[in-house]
Amino acid sequence: MSPTNPVFFERLTPENAALLLIDMQTGLMLGVTTISPVELKNNVLALAHLSLTYQLPTLLTTSAVQGPNGPYLPEVAELFPGQEIQNRMLVNAWDDPKFVAAVEKTGRKKLIMAAITTDVCLLFPALAAVQAGYDVYAVVDASGCFSTAAESSAITRMAQAGVKITGWGTVTAELLHDWSQPISQKTGAVLGQYMPATGYLVNNMAAQQATANQQAALQPA
Amino acid sequence: MSPTNPVFFERLTPENAALLLIDMQTGLMLGVTTISPVELKNNVLALAHLSLTYQLPTLLTTSAVQGPNGPYLPEVAELFPGQEIQNRMLVNAWDDPKFVAAVEKTGRKKLIMAAITTDVCLLFPALAAVQAGYDVYAVVDASGCFSTAAESSAITRMAQAGVKITGWGTVTAELLHDWSQPISQKTGAVLGQYMPATGYLVNNMAAQQATANQQAALQPA
Amino acid sequence: MSPTNPVFFERLTPENAALLLIDMQTGLMLGVTTISPVELKNNVLALAHLSLTYQLPTLLTTSAVQGPNGPYLPEVAELFPGQEIQNRMLVNAWDDPKFVAAVEKTGRKKLIMAAITTDVCLLFPALAAVQAGYDVYAVVDASGCFSTAAESSAITRMAQAGVKITGWGTVTAELLHDWSQPISQKTGAVLGQYMPATGYLVNNMAAQQATANQQAALQPA
Amino acid sequence: MSPTNPVFFERLTPENAALLLIDMQTGLMLGVTTISPVELKNNVLALAHLSLTYQLPTLLTTSAVQGPNGPYLPEVAELFPGQEIQNRMLVNAWDDPKFVAAVEKTGRKKLIMAAITTDVCLLFPALAAVQAGYDVYAVVDASGCFSTAAESSAITRMAQAGVKITGWGTVTAELLHDWSQPISQKTGAVLGQYMPATGYLVNNMAAQQATANQQAALQPA
Amino acid sequence: MSPTNPVFFERLTPENAALLLIDMQTGLMLGVTTISPVELKNNVLALAHLSLTYQLPTLLTTSAVQGPNGPYLPEVAELFPGQEIQNRMLVNAWDDPKFVAAVEKTGRKKLIMAAITTDVCLLFPALAAVQAGYDVYAVVDASGCFSTAAESSAITRMAQAGVKITGWGTVTAELLHDWSQPISQKTGAVLGQYMPATGYLVNNMAAQQATANQQAALQPA
Amino acid sequence: MSPTNPVFFERLTPENAALLLIDMQTGLMLGVTTISPVELKNNVLALAHLSLTYQLPTLLTTSAVQGPNGPYLPEVAELFPGQEIQNRMLVNAWDDPKFVAAVEKTGRKKLIMAAITTDVCLLFPALAAVQAGYDVYAVVDASGCFSTAAESSAITRMAQAGVKITGWGTVTAELLHDWSQPISQKTGAVLGQYMPATGYLVNNMAAQQATANQQAALQPA
Amino acid sequence: MSPTNPVFFERLTPENAALLLIDMQTGLMLGVTTISPVELKNNVLALAHLSLTYQLPTLLTTSAVQGPNGPYLPEVAELFPGQEIQNRMLVNAWDDPKFVAAVEKTGRKKLIMAAITTDVCLLFPALAAVQAGYDVYAVVDASGCFSTAAESSAITRMAQAGVKITGWGTVTAELLHDWSQPISQKTGAVLGQYMPATGYLVNNMAAQQATANQQAALQPA
Amino acid sequence: MSPTNPVFFERLTPENAALLLIDMQTGLMLGVTTISPVELKNNVLALAHLSLTYQLPTLLTTSAVQGPNGPYLPEVAELFPGQEIQNRMLVNAWDDPKFVAAVEKTGRKKLIMAAITTDVCLLFPALAAVQAGYDVYAVVDASGCFSTAAESSAITRMAQAGVKITGWGTVTAELLHDWSQPISQKTGAVLGQYMPATGYLVNNMAAQQATANQQAALQPA
Repeated sequence: MSPTNPVFFERLTPENAALLLIDMQTGLMLGVTTISPVELKNNVLALAHLSLTYQLPTLLTTSAVQGPNGPYLPEVAELFPGQEIQNRMLVNAWDDPKFVAAVEKTGRKKLIMAAITTDVCLLFPALAAVQAGYDVYAVVDASGCFSTAAESSAITRMAQAGVKITGWGTVTAELLHDWSQPISQKTGAVLGQYMPATGYLVNNMAAQQATANQQAALQPA
Repeated sequence: MSPTNPVFFERLTPENAALLLIDMQTGLMLGVTTISPVELKNNVLALAHLSLTYQLPTLLTTSAVQGPNGPYLPEVAELFPGQEIQNRMLVNAWDDPKFVAAVEKTGRKKLIMAAITTDVCLLFPALAAVQAGYDVYAVVDASGCFSTAAESSAITRMAQAGVKITGWGTVTAELLHDWSQPISQKTGAVLGQYMPATGYLVNNMAAQQATANQQAALQPA
Repeated sequence: MSPTNPVFFERLTPENAALLLIDMQTGLMLGVTTISPVELKNNVLALAHLSLTYQLPTLLTTSAVQGPNGPYLPEVAELFPGQEIQNRMLVNAWDDPKFVAAVEKTGRKKLIMAAITTDVCLLFPALAAVQAGYDVYAVVDASGCFSTAAESSAITRMAQAGVKITGWGTVTAELLHDWSQPISQKTGAVLGQYMPATGYLVNNMAAQQATANQQAALQPA
Repeated sequence: MSPTNPVFFERLTPENAALLLIDMQTGLMLGVTTISPVELKNNVLALAHLSLTYQLPTLLTTSAVQGPNGPYLPEVAELFPGQEIQNRMLVNAWDDPKFVAAVEKTGRKKLIMAAITTDVCLLFPALAAVQAGYDVYAVVDASGCFSTAAESSAITRMAQAGVKITGWGTVTAELLHDWSQPISQKTGAVLGQYMPATGYLVNNMAAQQATANQQAALQPA
Repeated sequence: MSPTNPVFFERLTPENAALLLIDMQTGLMLGVTTISPVELKNNVLALAHLSLTYQLPTLLTTSAVQGPNGPYLPEVAELFPGQEIQNRMLVNAWDDPKFVAAVEKTGRKKLIMAAITTDVCLLFPALAAVQAGYDVYAVVDASGCFSTAAESSAITRMAQAGVKITGWGTVTAELLHDWSQPISQKTGAVLGQYMPATGYLVNNMAAQQATANQQAALQPA
Repeated sequence: MSPTNPVFFERLTPENAALLLIDMQTGLMLGVTTISPVELKNNVLALAHLSLTYQLPTLLTTSAVQGPNGPYLPEVAELFPGQEIQNRMLVNAWDDPKFVAAVEKTGRKKLIMAAITTDVCLLFPALAAVQAGYDVYAVVDASGCFSTAAESSAITRMAQAGVKITGWGTVTAELLHDWSQPISQKTGAVLGQYMPATGYLVNNMAAQQATANQQAALQPA
Repeated sequence: MSPTNPVFFERLTPENAALLLIDMQTGLMLGVTTISPVELKNNVLALAHLSLTYQLPTLLTTSAVQGPNGPYLPEVAELFPGQEIQNRMLVNAWDDPKFVAAVEKTGRKKLIMAAITTDVCLLFPALAAVQAGYDVYAVVDASGCFSTAAESSAITRMAQAGVKITGWGTVTAELLHDWSQPISQKTGAVLGQYMPATGYLVNNMAAQQATANQQAALQPA
Repeated sequence: MSPTNPVFFERLTPENAALLLIDMQTGLMLGVTTISPVELKNNVLALAHLSLTYQLPTLLTTSAVQGPNGPYLPEVAELFPGQEIQNRMLVNAWDDPKFVAAVEKTGRKKLIMAAITTDVCLLFPALAAVQAGYDVYAVVDASGCFSTAAESSAITRMAQAGVKITGWGTVTAELLHDWSQPISQKTGAVLGQYMPATGYLVNNMAAQQATANQQAALQPA
């Protein structure tokens, strides 16, 4: 993507973005080696909660759900009650007209994508969406892959095609935009929960404030 | 510790063990570099839930709680409601007679210890407890340290003194002892939550079973 | 390669692809340091079996076969009985008119390439094939190199030239396209053999199913 | 173990050793992170073939085989046809009297052990066997663990107790003892298959010899 | 950025450059994992002293200074006495018209930027400044990030947009240009302090020279 | 060292300890590869300031100071004005009767040692001092070595001989003993300077307190 | 550099290439951390011997040779007796008209460059030479840098500008072109010396051949 | 080894030590993965030259020299002209009475050993020599192994048995003992050649001295 392409500099906003959590399935999780299961679960949950906070249209999809790929991660699925999780037998979600129709229905042109695995379930729809004119944000720290070589190959190939490679923290900051907005409190809660260093620092300062308040309350006026 | 020392081969059981979660404080968390905050929080919670499952006597303690070390990790503290968290100004918890008295009161001779930081808050009481005749299990993956060199030095020094170096998964298996016991189901739930590969495999198999059951139900008898 | 170049988004299919396994020779294997011999042999065999499964035209070639580079990997060669393995004294396989003629004879414009070494035997023909108008997939996890610095330099240079950097798992998924096709079973067998986590999960679920079936058979109707 | 303990210096022989391949189960494989599945499968197969070559008494055992731990690795089990694989619900194989009886029945006092996982299924029986007077060789590169910290803790604890920490190549060399024995050819075949650098070097030299022989045959006498 | 773009080859000079030290705040420091605090503090101080040496216009800015992000690093702030540190609630410093006005006021078109964190506080203003026609040097070794994946994603995205990725040593050398200038002595002092291998080598040679001089002084003429 | 040896459990105190900073020379620094020069300088300065804080007897020594080993680190030497730095041509400082005499003169039996290099200048006097009946603390993170293999070999050999392997943070905590002592403030200042995460957390909380105080001052009584 | 740019695909030949070994000075070597001194010396010597083998015009240059940067590596300089080593005070060798004149005098348009350090002494002349219309090969494994972050930043920036990133082995193979040329024997000798796995394999095969010959000589005709 | 064992503290001297360079064969080199061939060749040559410098009795031995293990490293063998290299078919050199007799003939009780591979050719004779009453120094950085897990297992097992784990630099320093001895110049030459940072620093200082001398010579008396 050329730096003269204006899409590169446009900002991701709650109004122009949708979230696609692709093939987050328990069986696929079992083969991931590029990130620990604890971290990957954490980062996918962070993205899901972020989406709820900003009320982004969010799509969940599975591939071959009745075979070894297994069911959708239950802790993620239950955050989106009543939402249909489309299954497909096609490898690339974007080859499924129902999935593309669901994306089009969101009316959003910026797609935040994460998937297991990075080198298949993220790479193929990311490339296809760019070709279809979308601006794609591939959240690589909320995606996992069966090998490091495959993951870095996929990242190289997505970057060559103009996909924006990113992390969930960057997406959060881009959506937040302004710490003086009311939504910053809810956003801080998501950060505090899933980026614990952030949360523990807030805890530490709140404890100090509580002590100060307590001492102040004990002072004669 | 000589291999002829019988204590080396004794089994850890729910009846002979106590858990000491030392100085798990938000401010200390902020300096840890040997394990990510997400993983450390996960492993400490695993140990805490394991303790609840096996009803181990559990002690929580803090050092200099009103300074930058900060309050006890709130998600851990709230699992032990009504339990006093002793604070002290002494560096080594074992130098505090109230702490030692609390340990003695448990009546247990095998102490499962984890702390932040490994090279101070775990090392000193682990050595002191061995000297006092206890059999110490230092859970190094539920502890964190400010540097790798300091952590590995502390592990070397504890091993020299006869402390058993271990991880929370090993402790779990040693307490469980037998998968045919009723407690194995609760134990499996802790493993499934905090060692997610374990949990996702169970999910995958349950989903297959549900499908099979559903198909069986649709068959004519 | 510009993202406006349509070749970037075209799909690899069993009809448009050929496989080139270049200089997979026992002597070259002995200098590889970027991947263990066990893993490299595994990944090359995976690619070879994949090619047989999808009946891709496949070319094998050697350089200086009578010197220290040594013979073609026997376990790979024997999968393609009756196929001539062209030898050459030229470093770059693409400088050999017989090799180029063999490629042209396949009639395929998408070339899946792997070689030992990545920085010589893969890099040079990959660049030359792009220049000649082919769409090249460099399978870097089925290739090996004498040093990490040389390997990453070669990957950078291939990516600059528009070569698609990829792994054998990604190639498999792109060829498969649709899990509901009959070929998916054979494909799954290749994955199960050479990506063992995949195979072991299938084993696990089959064992559960067998137990369930056995129990069902014992039930009175 | 003190260096004055003569057992430390005794040699492992085909006559004094037995092999225990503990809990090599497909479900446990899926959680291993300390070694790739390709490498672990390779190393376990190497040990199994070595045992067949040297006709060592070999025991296979599983834990909770009908749950998520899953069936024994099929490629290993099929090497020992007709051999019962004892299942147990106890975590520590050595707590099962049937297993201990089977070990005693071998009449061997040196036990080569490998298991999944290192920190549970290898650690506990290794310690128990030492206590029972056996000389234990823990083959850590044919064992796998769910985390690096847990694996290195287990290795430290086994070493403290006098277990000999080793790899499958070292065991092979100790059993072979003398390259001039007839068994060296079969041993070389196992090494060539599972330590491919060894095999490829032999291939290379054989190819050179074949060429030399061919040229010699063409010479007039 | 195309290599035909002349801006790529222009030299950074004391006359065309300004330094932007963005969000170097104590609270943000506490979450950095990509570089040790000792190294990051060292590198930020190096850049600050370099700026003083070359009298570059330098801007300091904070975000949400009264919350957990905390105050500006005191050891850096005190090097620029009397300089206002603009605070803002906007995430991206470039969204703040006061900040952009301050940049414009410097009259410089080449912006040397460093920030905590790399994936938010450096990435967003770097992209925005490129879009606004500036030539941006992102000093990644004087910036820090909460995770490696996020940092490398941000570097990829900045490089795609034409930002020059660099280190503080490279910036120093580019500004210095000529070791025969008077400013080279002051520059050497900064290097000696913050790149200690450089300083220690100078010390070593000075000690030798001193000894030689001393010996020479003792020689009769 | 046997755990039954009481020296293992004795506490390091300001009254029983001396500090030996051996061969901290600029030329030796230039070959260190096991720790960056920035970190090593930081950690040696930390130990020196700690010694000043606790008024430990401190010895500085050099080897072959007029050759390439070079002068003592100037920033360390200047902290101990008026103190002679003994030079020697012997490799092992403990082979020098003047050095041993200086140690004896301190009257301390616990020796905190750090040196460049770990595998020579620390290893040899550490072993010799143990043999002479001292209790040695080898501060490995304030020492450096020319290769990782040599450093870990030296650590293994020192641990075998009963040397306590440790880090400077552990030594600090052991000397401090009690946060309620007056010296804790000075100790905290050393930690804040040389373990910056500690210092930045204090800064953060102080800034919050200052804001709170400022706001309180503005309130009507 | 666009893949449509024909220069990307042109071959490096002994007739179109020159070698520039920039600032290979003993003092700069002392700060390198990205490659061990043993490996860097090896790789620079390999490049130098390669140049002699192919009779490439070769330029040596130093910066600030009388200060701490120190003299040119003596083992490299002595391979080019009688050749003047130009010194300069300018940081960028390409800013020195004498150096550029020397390059122009070679009449070569493809420049193989290596330097200490990668982020200064290689980066700046590489960029300048591209701007001046040369085709630059940056040999990153025969160059060294003071930090990994600085090295990878420089590689990114050179790749952005169209510099070809490469290793000395790749350069060797590109120059050799054809193993049937007479020069292949001398080339093999350089490889055997500086890429020892290559040499040892040849040794192994030669020893086998010698044995075979000896045995053949003993046979009756 | 207990710290009360006096052998632990005895010094290695030119009079009490012999060097055993075991199975340093070209074919074995080809499988080593724990150290690069360039570094291993460097370190073995260092040890050999050190031995010549100190006139240590030195033994070379091979195993199965006519098979794939190949001939002794030629660059090492040629340093000991006229010395027989004993070959054997036994795996453990110490099982060969001729080898043991050769060791006994040296009359030395301290054995410096290095070998390829660490886990077989070094481990077995090291253990056997300890059992036979020798004091063994295992030089692990002049030895190589086929896998990291096997190497660290062997190091653990040797350390358990009381073998001293060391590096060639430590051995050098222990033999040197005193920089004021005449042999220190020759020793420095070995260090300068094989530990290049040492040599380059000397070069740098010599160049400075030469310049100073040259300037002094130009001064009027």
